[in-house]
Amino acid sequence: LGDDDVSRAEELISELHFADIADLLGWASSSQRAKLVDLIRPDFDPELLTELDDELREEVISLLGTEAVAEAISELDSDDVVEVVEYLEEEDQKELLGALSDIERARVEEALSYPEYTAGRIMQRELVAIPDYWSVGQTIDFLRSAKNLPDDFYDIIVVDPRYSPVGIVPLSRAIRTNRPVLIRDVMDTENMRTVVVTEEQENVAHLFRQRDLISAPVVDDTGRLVGVITVDDVVDVIDEEYEEDMMRLAGVGEEDDLSSAIFDTTRSRFTWLLVNLFTAIAASMVISVFEGTIQQLVALAVLMPIVASMGGNAGTQTLTVAVRAIATRELTSTNAWRVIRKEVAVCGLNGLAFAVLTGAVTWFWFDDGLLGAVIGAAMIINLLFAGLFGALIPLGLERAGIDPAVSSSVFLTTITDVVGFFAFLGLAATFLL
Amino acid sequence: LGDDDVSRAEELISELHFADIADLLGWASSSQRAKLVDLIRPDFDPELLTELDDELREEVISLLGTEAVAEAISELDSDDVVEVVEYLEEEDQKELLGALSDIERARVEEALSYPEYTAGRIMQRELVAIPDYWSVGQTIDFLRSAKNLPDDFYDIIVVDPRYSPVGIVPLSRAIRTNRPVLIRDVMDTENMRTVVVTEEQENVAHLFRQRDLISAPVVDDTGRLVGVITVDDVVDVIDEEYEEDMMRLAGVGEEDDLSSAIFDTTRSRFTWLLVNLFTAIAASMVISVFEGTIQQLVALAVLMPIVASMGGNAGTQTLTVAVRAIATRELTSTNAWRVIRKEVAVCGLNGLAFAVLTGAVTWFWFDDGLLGAVIGAAMIINLLFAGLFGALIPLGLERAGIDPAVSSSVFLTTITDVVGFFAFLGLAATFLL
Repeated sequence: LGDDDVSRAEELISELHFADIADLLGWASSSQRAKLVDLIRPDFDPELLTELDDELREEVISLLGTEAVAEAISELDSDDVVEVVEYLEEEDQKELLGALSDIERARVEEALSYPEYTAGRIMQRELVAIPDYWSVGQTIDFLRSAKNLPDDFYDIIVVDPRYSPVGIVPLSRAIRTNRPVLIRDVMDTENMRTVVVTEEQENVAHLFRQRDLISAPVVDDTGRLVGVITVDDVVDVIDEEYEEDMMRLAGVGEEDDLSSAIFDTTRSRFTWLLVNLFTAIAASMVISVFEGTIQQLVALAVLMPIVASMGGNAGTQTLTVAVRAIATRELTSTNAWRVIRKEVAVCGLNGLAFAVLTGAVTWFWFDDGLLGAVIGAAMIINLLFAGLFGALIPLGLERAGIDPAVSSSVFLTTITDVVGFFAFLGLAATFLL
Repeated sequence: LGDDDVSRAEELISELHFADIADLLGWASSSQRAKLVDLIRPDFDPELLTELDDELREEVISLLGTEAVAEAISELDSDDVVEVVEYLEEEDQKELLGALSDIERARVEEALSYPEYTAGRIMQRELVAIPDYWSVGQTIDFLRSAKNLPDDFYDIIVVDPRYSPVGIVPLSRAIRTNRPVLIRDVMDTENMRTVVVTEEQENVAHLFRQRDLISAPVVDDTGRLVGVITVDDVVDVIDEEYEEDMMRLAGVGEEDDLSSAIFDTTRSRFTWLLVNLFTAIAASMVISVFEGTIQQLVALAVLMPIVASMGGNAGTQTLTVAVRAIATRELTSTNAWRVIRKEVAVCGLNGLAFAVLTGAVTWFWFDDGLLGAVIGAAMIINLLFAGLFGALIPLGLERAGIDPAVSSSVFLTTITDVVGFFAFLGLAATFLL
């Protein structure tokens, strides 16, 4: 970022694609960001705003001034406008929407009336719908003359008189068909999948992925066509959903962007660490039951973290596979028991292998065969629990209607810590003293 | 799955979309799978094979018999054939390819000659390329009469006389333009992004996501057009890359599918657990240095896992954010130091908060204010290290050309365990005894 030579920088910037500018804004420090925004102001492409994280977008909009932004966003398709304004403060949102035409504004406001993370939020209103009695020629003529069509579209939606979608015609098929042929005879009814406007975006993404869709018509609860979802929006949803899973597994909030303020980030991570503190204290209480045992044999204090750590790691392996398989619908109630049995078997086998290894290491280290046997037995017990609960916890959360990624790992490590310490210290107290 | 009433099951199955049958095969046990394959045999859609995991696909192919499969796959586009055969054993691969026409086989074999996970493997050979001096009308006539076009396409690629791509015409633009207009005047040169055939698929996915592309021409190293990549292939790549990151963070192999055999899964997870055993032993060695201290004050053994666990969790939060940000290119060398400083600050602030909390709990629990002060100080030290290494480790791996998701978390927890135990027990030995 050449901070000094402004005119040169301006020249460089004006050659960049808006997506590259969005990347630059993300990498910049806040003072660099202000300079960058000044550079892009004269030649501002509103699509840039759709590429930014929520917080960054808010910052850039306030740097640009709502007035300039309001003017610019009237060029965008309705789904992009929704993306830009949905997380703004109410006042800013109102001001931006005020600059839109009445029809545009009504469209955006209706979209905002649907719950977050549903099809209604990601669909666009601009679409191409035609009746099934038209010919291909009529359709092409209509497309050539119509205004107000979306910027890009890939499928033409065929509707019945009640404006319900009955089929789609991929553009590649329309363009290859002779003009006199009727739409009804070329439309594809089999590969059309309609989405209800209140459907969760996660399910929409799954549908697109499973069926390799490029676009899907969206209907309201009476079956009337109200919008269309295209694959580029779905790619963003897939990104979001994955990020959510990955972050939730690690106890990080979704809003935890690189560009968030230090204090916000600290606070958002605090909660998870607090939960973890309670579970760590629970594990410590188990240890405190065996204080006397440890005092007599300090080697137990040295070795006990090994049992807990191996249990935590084996359990996390199972947990991650299960969370992922639930997200891709590979793991459902149909095969849940089979998967649980398998995971317990896998962890049990690894438990056996590591019982032998850890037992041998312990034997040599402390010259105590019985101590080796105790740590080996504790290892097997803890890994069996790890496999069982690594699979059970996400399945249970899913059944309870909770995202299986949320807090799975806290539950799991609590169990593997408690079981690990209890099994190891308990066996030691029984057999070694 | 009605196992008894075969004719009814057959009827149900024949109504299902191939993607649903693929899901069913994934959920089924191996004996159910054999029955299912018998049911789909009469009406077998080869696209089904592209929806299966590698191991499952191999199983289904051997159940169906290579001969039946060979016949069926000749209907597929070349990228789908590549997907079906690329991980088969050589003999089966040869037999399947033998059933293709010479041109088809040459195409597939050339695709297989490109390295795994590159553009060459995911592109399809079937594409629509036209010269820029044609008119829109000529183009439409060509599309109507040409055979051997891909099943679906979204952009027409415009090539110069050396068959290098010079622009693209989105179909929606072609269909809306009047017949006499020249392709040269409607083609989009700005939003075309060509991909070199040896480019890694991860970079291709990033490009599609950043630019919201629907398709991109693929060129060889002389710039000649050799294929096209479409967004549906990229969605699969995005899936794969994410799964890889998530699995690698948890120490699970990518080939660890629900359908893998128990013994394979056990073995693939063993390595990671073995690495973890060594690091756990390293942490134990730190503890063993302080055996005498623990013997004098057993409360230390009770409390020490809290320090280690909080460090591990805070570090994992930072690590996950960093791994994810590197994958999305939000974190690069441009802003690395700023992110590291921020993460250390966030962890330091949380360290302060939890120093107070844990210190207070310890004070009340053991009625020992100095012990509370010691655990608080150790907490701050460990969380600072957690933030620093949570960000440094993935950045370092990335710089060394290693996937930052691989083994990041083992390195990190080794550091937070060792630092946690050392800081807590060391401070205790110095100030409490």
